[in-house]
Amino acid sequence: MGRRSSDRSRRGRMAETPEGRARGEEWWSTDIIEMRPGLIRLRGYPIEDLIGRVSFPAMIWLMLRGDLPSEAQADLLDAALGAAVDHGPQAPSIAIARMAATCGVGINSAMASAINVLGDVHGGAGEGAVAFYGEIAAATDGGLPLEEAVAARLDRFFAEGAGYVPGFGHRFHPVDPRAPRLLALVREAASAGAVSGRFADIAEALERGIAARKSRRVPLNIDGATAVIYGELGFPPPLTRGLFVLSRSVGILAHAWEQGQQGGRNKGPLPREWLWAYGGPPERKLPEAE
Amino acid sequence: MGRRSSDRSRRGRMAETPEGRARGEEWWSTDIIEMRPGLIRLRGYPIEDLIGRVSFPAMIWLMLRGDLPSEAQADLLDAALGAAVDHGPQAPSIAIARMAATCGVGINSAMASAINVLGDVHGGAGEGAVAFYGEIAAATDGGLPLEEAVAARLDRFFAEGAGYVPGFGHRFHPVDPRAPRLLALVREAASAGAVSGRFADIAEALERGIAARKSRRVPLNIDGATAVIYGELGFPPPLTRGLFVLSRSVGILAHAWEQGQQGGRNKGPLPREWLWAYGGPPERKLPEAE
Amino acid sequence: MGRRSSDRSRRGRMAETPEGRARGEEWWSTDIIEMRPGLIRLRGYPIEDLIGRVSFPAMIWLMLRGDLPSEAQADLLDAALGAAVDHGPQAPSIAIARMAATCGVGINSAMASAINVLGDVHGGAGEGAVAFYGEIAAATDGGLPLEEAVAARLDRFFAEGAGYVPGFGHRFHPVDPRAPRLLALVREAASAGAVSGRFADIAEALERGIAARKSRRVPLNIDGATAVIYGELGFPPPLTRGLFVLSRSVGILAHAWEQGQQGGRNKGPLPREWLWAYGGPPERKLPEAE
Amino acid sequence: MGRRSSDRSRRGRMAETPEGRARGEEWWSTDIIEMRPGLIRLRGYPIEDLIGRVSFPAMIWLMLRGDLPSEAQADLLDAALGAAVDHGPQAPSIAIARMAATCGVGINSAMASAINVLGDVHGGAGEGAVAFYGEIAAATDGGLPLEEAVAARLDRFFAEGAGYVPGFGHRFHPVDPRAPRLLALVREAASAGAVSGRFADIAEALERGIAARKSRRVPLNIDGATAVIYGELGFPPPLTRGLFVLSRSVGILAHAWEQGQQGGRNKGPLPREWLWAYGGPPERKLPEAE
Repeated sequence: MGRRSSDRSRRGRMAETPEGRARGEEWWSTDIIEMRPGLIRLRGYPIEDLIGRVSFPAMIWLMLRGDLPSEAQADLLDAALGAAVDHGPQAPSIAIARMAATCGVGINSAMASAINVLGDVHGGAGEGAVAFYGEIAAATDGGLPLEEAVAARLDRFFAEGAGYVPGFGHRFHPVDPRAPRLLALVREAASAGAVSGRFADIAEALERGIAARKSRRVPLNIDGATAVIYGELGFPPPLTRGLFVLSRSVGILAHAWEQGQQGGRNKGPLPREWLWAYGGPPERKLPEAE
Repeated sequence: MGRRSSDRSRRGRMAETPEGRARGEEWWSTDIIEMRPGLIRLRGYPIEDLIGRVSFPAMIWLMLRGDLPSEAQADLLDAALGAAVDHGPQAPSIAIARMAATCGVGINSAMASAINVLGDVHGGAGEGAVAFYGEIAAATDGGLPLEEAVAARLDRFFAEGAGYVPGFGHRFHPVDPRAPRLLALVREAASAGAVSGRFADIAEALERGIAARKSRRVPLNIDGATAVIYGELGFPPPLTRGLFVLSRSVGILAHAWEQGQQGGRNKGPLPREWLWAYGGPPERKLPEAE
Repeated sequence: MGRRSSDRSRRGRMAETPEGRARGEEWWSTDIIEMRPGLIRLRGYPIEDLIGRVSFPAMIWLMLRGDLPSEAQADLLDAALGAAVDHGPQAPSIAIARMAATCGVGINSAMASAINVLGDVHGGAGEGAVAFYGEIAAATDGGLPLEEAVAARLDRFFAEGAGYVPGFGHRFHPVDPRAPRLLALVREAASAGAVSGRFADIAEALERGIAARKSRRVPLNIDGATAVIYGELGFPPPLTRGLFVLSRSVGILAHAWEQGQQGGRNKGPLPREWLWAYGGPPERKLPEAE
Repeated sequence: MGRRSSDRSRRGRMAETPEGRARGEEWWSTDIIEMRPGLIRLRGYPIEDLIGRVSFPAMIWLMLRGDLPSEAQADLLDAALGAAVDHGPQAPSIAIARMAATCGVGINSAMASAINVLGDVHGGAGEGAVAFYGEIAAATDGGLPLEEAVAARLDRFFAEGAGYVPGFGHRFHPVDPRAPRLLALVREAASAGAVSGRFADIAEALERGIAARKSRRVPLNIDGATAVIYGELGFPPPLTRGLFVLSRSVGILAHAWEQGQQGGRNKGPLPREWLWAYGGPPERKLPEAE
C-alpha cells in the first residue's frame, strides 16, 4: 500500500525536480503522518477521530500497516504484544535496564541501552521463526502438501547443521506456558474465520517433525508462538522484531523503574563485595626502551 | 505496594546474610516476575491467565503498578498511549530513527538511538506537567481553593521567569487537536465515576490563568493533556516519561520501517547534494614547531 | 574562539535571510569542518597536513578547542585519557558492553549501550570535580587565599549534606593508584611552566581540608585527578564528561571484543543456572469480572 | 595471546566446578584487568607504570591486543585514529549527535545515539576492506602472485555484482585527501622495517585492477587506507570497526558539544519553518463499525 503510492508521488515530484525548500521537504517524505497547523492525520485519519475509538494495538497496526485492523486482528496483536513483555532479569536487556537506572541517566536512556541489545540473538528468534514458517507457507502455496513442505524444510535445516529450529525449545522451560495459550487464541480466531490458521498448522507440523527427528519433544516457545500470530496477521519478518521491541519495552520500563525505586548507585552485575576472575598475565614490568 | 513488600522481604533476607548463589540471586531481586521451569507469573498472575484476557494497556499498568487497572482506567491509559505515537520527522527522535534505518543496524538499534533522545527537553514536558499539576493538587489538598492554588503557582512560575508552563502552548499548532479530545475522554470517565476529574479541573484553571496573564490563549497541548490522564490515574511524574517512550516508540518503529522500505544508504539530514555552512577559520598552515 | 566567529557569521547570514538550499545548509552550520570535493579541513587545517604530524590526543584537542595544543598540553591530555580506560566488569558500563556483545548486535551498538550509561552518577564525578575546583579557583581569583577558599567551599558543601566531595574517596581502593601518578605529571608540567599547577594546589588543599573535617584521609581518586588535569588545561566541566567517554570507550571496546571471543549466547548478569530472588505477591487468580 | 590463556585458565577452573561466589566471579572472568584494593593492572602492567609512559594509542593497543606495540606500530595506529575523526554533519552519525545534543540528554547519551548507527553500512566499509585485503593476502600466502590473487578476487567480486569494492571510490571526493597521506606513512614505516608493506601493495594492486575493469580511476578512500594500516598491524577485521568507533567518537563529541554551545531546542533535521512532504492517503473517515 503506502509504499507504492509514496513511490509514485515521489517520482512525480522528482520529475518536477524541486529545489530549495521543496527539495528539503521531499527529502523527508512520508506516507505516515500529515501535519498542518492545528491538523494531524495518521494514515489519512484525523488524530482526534482515532483517539478513544481505536485501541492502542490497533494504532500500532495502523501506523505500521497503513490501514486499520479488524477487531479480531487487533485482539491477536494485543495478545502477542502482552505475552512477551518480560522474562526476568536474567535476560541481558532487563539486566541492562536495571543497571542503567542506577547510573544517573533518564529513564528513556535506560530503556534505550536495553532495547539496543534486542539484536539478532536476543530479539531475532521470533523474526527467524516468521521467516521459517513463511518459507513453508510458500512451498504449500506452490502445491506441496504441508507435511512434505515441513519435512523438506527440516531436512534442509538439519543438513545445514544450523542448531535449533527458530521458535522451538527453551533452555529453561520444559514447556513455555505462553505458547499453548497463544496457539489456542489463534485457533479460536481461525474458527471464527478471522485468520486462516495455516501458520498454526505449520507450527504444529514443525513440532511433530522435530520430535520425530530428535526422538523427544521440543515444544513451541514464545518466539514460535508469537511468530504464528505475526504470520497469520501478515507481518513481514523483519518488522516483527520491531513488535517484539514494543512488547519487551514494557518489561524494560518496569524493571528500570523498580530498580530506581529500590535505589543503588552504579549497580554492577555482581554483589558489590564480589569481583571477577582474572585470567591474564601476572604482573610484569614495562620494557625499559618504551 | 510492591515497593514495601520488596523492602521487607529484602530486609528479611539480609538478616539471614545469604552467601554464594543466594547472595547473587538476591542482588537481582524483583517483585515483578517469578519464574520456575514451566512457570511464569507477572505480579503473581500466571502468564497464561493474563494472555488474551488482559489488554496490552492493562498489562502495561500491571507491570508498572503491581495490580490490574479497572476497565475505565485501562481505557484512559490506552487513549493517552495512542494519542502521542507520532509527530512527524521534524521531531529529532523520528528523524534519528529514519537516518539510523539506513546505516546498517537492526531495527532495535534504530529504535534505541531514537528513544535515547526522548530526554528532558524532547520527552520531559509531560513529566513536567504531571509534576506541576501535582503541586497544585497538593495545595488544594491543604485546603486552598483551586483558583487560588493555581494563581499562586503561576505567580511563582512567572516570577521565576521560567518560560512556558509545561503542557501549554505549541510552536506549531494554534490548538493541538489531540488535547481537547483527550480532555473530553477524562470528563466522560469522571462523569462515570471512574476518575475524580480534578486534574482536568487543574488543567482548565491553568489555561484560564495563563490566558489572563498573557492576554491571549495558550491552550493545553498533547503533553498537558496526557499529563491530565496520568495525573488522574496516579502515575508518579518520572514514570510518565516512560509511558511517553512506550507511546512514541510506535511512531519511531513506523518511520524506521518506512525509511528502510524506501531505501537509501547513509541518509543524512539534508538532500545528498547539499552540504552545510562552514563558519570557522579559513585555511591555515600547521606551525612548524609542532 | 570558534564560538564567537560562528555567531558572527551566523548573524551575518541571518541578516541576508537565506532561503532554499542556503537556508538548509545554514541549519547545519559548523566551525569544525570544511569540505569541498577533494578537500577536508579541520578547524582550518588541511587534513593531510594533520595526519602523521599531530598526535591523536592533539587531534582531540583541536576538534574540541579549535586550536592546537602545545606538546606539554597534549601530553597531559594523553595521560588523562590513558589513565581512565578501564575499571573492570563490576562497572555497569563494562558489564553492559560484555552482555551486549553476546546479543547479536554490532560492536558499535555494544559500545553505544555501554557509553550511554556513563551518566551523572557513573560518568559525572569527574565533571563535578572540575566544576568544584573551578568554583574555588574563581574565589581565589577574587582575592581569597587558597586555604580560605577551600574551607569556605567545604563548609558550604558539608552544610548542604551533599555526601562525598566529587573526586575524593573510593569504595574499593584505599588509595587509587592512578591519582598520585597523574598528580606527579601535573607537578612536572607545572615545574616546566606548561601549566600553572593551581588545580593541583586546589586538589591537595581539598584533600587536607576533607581529612581535617573527617578525621581520616579521603584521598584523591581517578575522577579528582583527571579533573586536575582538565582544569589545568582549561576544559569546561561538561565537556570533560565527553573526554571520559573517549577514554572509557577503550575499555568498553576491549571487553566487548573479549566477550565476543569467549563466546556465549545471551549472557545474563548471573551464571546461567542461577535465577533471581522474587519478592512480590504470591500466586493469585485474575478477578472474574476482568 | 590472552585468548588462549583465558581458555586454559577457565577450563582449569571449570574442572574444579566452583560454586557460590567463585562461580559468580568466574562468570565475569577477563584477561584484561586485574584489581585488588589499591591495585590496578592492565594486561599485567601496573596502571601507575603505564600512565605518562605509554601513549593513548599504545594504551588502546595494549587493551585490545594484550601486549604493547612498538613505537612505529603505535604511530601508525595513531595516524589511522586521527585521520577518521570527522566527515561533517551530512554523515548521519554526526547529524544525530547534533540533534541529540538539543534534546536534554547528557553528552554521553548524545554520543551513544550517534555511535550506535556506525553499523554495517555507515561503519562497516573499513572492516570490509580489511577482510577483502586479508583474503588476497591469504591467497598470496598460498603461493599465488599478487596480481593474480587480486585479479581472481576482483573477478569473483564483479561476477557477484556486489557493487563497490570496499575501500575504493567516494561519492563526494574525486580523490580522498586522507588516503594518499596515510599510504605514504605506511610506505615510510615499511621502509624502516616496522611493517611489511604487503597490505599497501594489495591496495595499490586493487586500485590498478579496478581501474582496468572500470576504465576509470576509482581511488582508495579513507576506509581503504585505514584498512591498509589495520591490516599491516594485524587487527582482525571486526575489531577494526571498533577502532573506527574510537576515532569517529572524537568528531561526534566535537559536534555534540558545538551544537550544545550554539543552543537550539529540539533541533530537527530541517529548518524549523520547513515540514516534510506527505505522500500517503488523503483525509478519510473511520469506518463506523470500528
